Order: sequence, then C-alpha cells, then structure tokens
Amino acid sequence: MKWNIPSVENPSLASEIAARWNNLTKPPGSLGQLEELVTRYALIRGEAVPDLARKSMHIFCADHGVTAEGVSAYPSAVTAQMVRNFLRGGAAINVLCRHYGIETTIVDCGVDAPCEEGVVDCKIARGTRNFARGPAMTREQAGESIENGMALARKAAASYDIAGVGEMGIGNTTAASALLCAFAKLSPIEASGRGAGLDADGVLHKAGVIEQALALHAPQAEDPIGALASIGGFEISTMIGFLLGAAESRLPVIIDGFIATSAALVAAAMAPEALGVLFFAHRSAEHAHWAMLSHLGARAILDLDMRLGEGSAAAIAIGVLECGVKLYREMATFDDLS
Amino acid sequence: MKWNIPSVENPSLASEIAARWNNLTKPPGSLGQLEELVTRYALIRGEAVPDLARKSMHIFCADHGVTAEGVSAYPSAVTAQMVRNFLRGGAAINVLCRHYGIETTIVDCGVDAPCEEGVVDCKIARGTRNFARGPAMTREQAGESIENGMALARKAAASYDIAGVGEMGIGNTTAASALLCAFAKLSPIEASGRGAGLDADGVLHKAGVIEQALALHAPQAEDPIGALASIGGFEISTMIGFLLGAAESRLPVIIDGFIATSAALVAAAMAPEALGVLFFAHRSAEHAHWAMLSHLGARAILDLDMRLGEGSAAAIAIGVLECGVKLYREMATFDDLS
Repeated sequence: MKWNIPSVENPSLASEIAARWNNLTKPPGSLGQLEELVTRYALIRGEAVPDLARKSMHIFCADHGVTAEGVSAYPSAVTAQMVRNFLRGGAAINVLCRHYGIETTIVDCGVDAPCEEGVVDCKIARGTRNFARGPAMTREQAGESIENGMALARKAAASYDIAGVGEMGIGNTTAASALLCAFAKLSPIEASGRGAGLDADGVLHKAGVIEQALALHAPQAEDPIGALASIGGFEISTMIGFLLGAAESRLPVIIDGFIATSAALVAAAMAPEALGVLFFAHRSAEHAHWAMLSHLGARAILDLDMRLGEGSAAAIAIGVLECGVKLYREMATFDDLS
Repeated sequence: MKWNIPSVENPSLASEIAARWNNLTKPPGSLGQLEELVTRYALIRGEAVPDLARKSMHIFCADHGVTAEGVSAYPSAVTAQMVRNFLRGGAAINVLCRHYGIETTIVDCGVDAPCEEGVVDCKIARGTRNFARGPAMTREQAGESIENGMALARKAAASYDIAGVGEMGIGNTTAASALLCAFAKLSPIEASGRGAGLDADGVLHKAGVIEQALALHAPQAEDPIGALASIGGFEISTMIGFLLGAAESRLPVIIDGFIATSAALVAAAMAPEALGVLFFAHRSAEHAHWAMLSHLGARAILDLDMRLGEGSAAAIAIGVLECGVKLYREMATFDDLS
C-alpha cells in the first residue's frame, strides 16, 4: 500500500473564493457553515467556481463474526437481506438517492452470502471471524480490502464530483466502538452504544465483549493495520482504502455516521492529510459518535438524531452542500444590483 | 380579529402513523428527528400518508423607523433594493427556492418605497415610526397587518402543502430583540445581537436604544397587540397574522430565523395553540435566537450558523422535511422483504 496525498491548501485560490462570497448580495459570512463547506469543497476541487453535479453514494457491506457473542439486536442474515433491499430500491438510502439524484454503488466487502448480481464484488471472506476469540481478519486481508477501496475511489473520482460513504453490516457498531477504544483511548463502556436497538443490558454486554477483545489483542493506534486486522471489519477496511484513494484523487467525501467515521479515524492515523477531503454528515444518535468527531476535530453538518447508517445522513448532507454550491454559483453580486 | 384554531392532536391517527414507521425496513426510531417531523406534519395535515408537493415561501418585507438611531450596519434603502433583487431572482432565497421547487411570494408589508409590480401589496405605511421616540405603529395598524397576514395564510392553505416564512427589513433585528425582551423577559443586552453585521460597540448601542424604547413604552406580554404596536414592525405583525391564519387552516409552516421566530413568540402569546402547526428551521447565529426557541420549547431542524433571513434556512429545512416525507411514503416494509 502506497499513497501520495496532495495538500488542498491554496492561499491564492482561498482569497479568490472569499472575494466571490463577499461580493454576493448578502451580509458577509451570513450563510455561516454553508460558506465554509463550499469554500473547502472548492479548495479540494482546486477550482474557484466548482460544480457539484455528479453525485455518488458508495455503500460498503459486510458481516461480522463477533455477532456470535450476541452484540446486536438483529441476526447477521439481515445484512444480506438489506443488500437485496438496496438492489430492489426499497431501503432508506434508495429513497434518498433517488430524491437527490445520487447514483448508488453497493459494494460487497464480506457479506456472509454469495455476492449478488448488481453489487461490486470486493468480498474478502464471508464475514470476519469472531474478534472476541481471535483476530477478525489477517493483516493480508486488511491490506487487500484497503487496496480494493483505493481502487474504487480512483474509479469514482473519474466519474463523480462527490462521494457519500455509508455502510451496512449487522454487528459493525461493535467493531467501530472497539476501534474507537484503540484509536482514541476511550473505555469500552464509553465507546459502546445501542447500535440498531440494544437495551441497556445489551450495551453493557457489548462493552464486556469489547473489553475482552481489547485484552486479547491489545490493538495499538501506532500499528493501524494490525489494530484493524484484530478488531475491524471488511466494510470498515474497504472504506479506509476508499478514503485514502479519494484523498489521493481529491475526490470530496461525505462520511455518513458512526461506522464510516471509525474508518476515518483509522485512515487519519495512517495518513492525517486524508482528512483534507472529508466532510462529516451528521452527529449520530449512537452516543460515542461525538467522541470520534471530537478526536478528529470535525464539525458535523446535521444533527437529526439519526442512527440508521447506509449513507442516509450523508445523502441529506450532500443535499445541503449542493444548495451551498448553488448559492455560491448563482446569487447576484452587489454590482448586479446597481 | 378572531380565530378558531383546531387541535392537531389525534391519538388514533398518531398510532396509525407510528405503526407505518415501525414497519419500514429500518430499526425503529433510527431516522430520529425525521420521524418526529414527518409524524407532526401528518398530524397537522390530518392524513396517515400525506404528500408534500406544493411548497411555498412567503417573504415579508418592511422598513423600520428605528434605523434613524443607527442600529443597523446597512441603510434602510437596502430593503427596497433587496425586494427588487427578489423579483429579479438574484437573492439567496431565489436560488434556494428554484433548487427545491418552492414558489415564492414577496409581500410588501411596509417598505419605504412604492410597491413594486409582482409583489403582494399589504403595505400599511412606508416604514414604521422610530420606536425609540414613540410607538412604531398604531393599534389599528397592528390589527390591519395581522388581518392581512391571516388572509394571505388562508389563500396559501388553498394552494400549498407547506409554507416557509421569511423576511427582509433593515433594522428588524432591533424590533425582534425588543419583542424578545417584552415577551420572554430578557434584558436588552441579552437579547441584542450583531444583526446583519454590527461590531461590539454597535451591539451595545442597539441594546441602549432598546432599553430606551422599553422604558418609554413598558410593553407587556399580556397586551400583545399593544406591545406589537409600540415596538414591532409591519413584516412582523403581518407574519403573526400569517401564523394564526395557517394554524386555523392547518397549513404547516416552517419559521425561518430570529425575526420570524419573534413573530411566533407574539403569535404564541395571542394563541398558544398556533404553535401546533409551526416548525423551526434552524438555530440562527443571531445569538439570542436560542432564548426565543427555548421560550417556545422548540427544537430547530438545522444548526448551520446562518443569519441571513429571507427564508433561507426555512427553504433548506423544507428540503429536509420533504426527504423525510419521501422516506415515510416510499420505503419498503419488512413484509416486502420476505
């Protein structure tokens, strides 16, 4: 694995963008975060007046051996069911992507079922192994899935102006919480939440399983691939590759929620400059998400108590960014008024 | 002025809506605030599966005599300039409404210029009087503008599923802050903010002007019309009427920002049940907006540090609610999956 991530900093372009904002018919700065988001978007694209027309959503799917420990409110079989729901267009993310004109790409990174037609095949194995008892995957598998993600991002960069990153995988909040412990030094109980619908006892049990896994593997942020192999998931490792590849290709990415942000956490440990192309869609109702965002120094665009995943909040956030870009491109200037 | 506001409460309809949400292919409650917003929207419409297709934005415009005290970063002439900008389609709100498919109605409630063609003429006078020296308007003028607003809302209810409420009026944050003092017992310095761009000294001066006006008029929440006449504005009083008329007609309304929320504050003092049809688009960067929302027990949909007015945040919030309605209408059920 190698990457070469260009800086998005460009003071003269930034001045040009600020001058354009300040000549539009509104008090300077009055569009608040929209101005900051569009400015960053333009800097990533390297254009003073960028377009945002070709929109994609990548949904990374995989299963998790750790579900054997009873850490999820749903059985693993729901992952494959939901992949079929994505293909038939009935899931939340399908409705949102149709509404916003976003093309969806469904990626099978390790679903515990045969790969479906219409899905991009990046399957490493039929689910990870149970990381409460042994490593989730080998280092080679982690590397292979990261390479898969990088290749997908290079391809996406050739076709799209922006990519949303979401996921589906029963059990994956457990992996994401474990990674949060390893990379941001939270305790399992601080990092564990209700996922798709655990009760309070379920959350305590999940934290116990994570505690056991951390004791078994002692994952270290200084060895991100090792940590990922021990307690990660195939959709998470593929997303990490996607973020690194997007940063290389200057493809702006909107990170969905808790699990996608855990991929950003690991990607930032591998290559902090990758954060330059990332936007964070929302603050999830999964309670430890604030700690991930805080560790990354990130501000979320939305705060709607959502906790669905699939890219659902990323789709809505793409809509918000898109209207920011339109304001920037289409508003009259004070010169036009006189 | 009379109104007869029906209750939006309907336990059997609420159960039907909850059952539909819980049968969609997602963990129960995982769409968070979107589920709550759509549920309230359906209750207001009185339909188990409502549509949200016909969208409007009403922009209430007026001038303020209190600008003679130097309370705004911009001269009054900018109000009329911006009305022309709305008509030509170059303002932020035009860009947003084109993007979201929202029809705009520009209402001249008291701009200090002749009424423009293409604008709805509800002009009471060419601006209020300077309320630091005397009442902003007469009680009769306050009543007349409220009646105007009610008539507009009845008309809107016949044509639209939802109405955004925004405004334009140089000096109107001063009136809104004064109303906040009168209706929620804040001190002038707590209630005063930067408006369209005051510096810290400007904010202090503005608070002093409000202090003077409060001492002169002693406005009381128990006499809302009297308070409105002494320290209000024509766009604010017309918006109050619009909110009352919308509540009568069960037309869902999205309140934009600080000034539109001040109209909600007064409307709620006149008829608390009017709050049943209101949604609050965002938490404005105008710092005392939180106090208004808190006084009304309202949660805002967005928090993007915007402070432009015109209905800009309301337009984006309509977009968010619309995608919530689409999710509710179009997602597959668990029965579909099997």
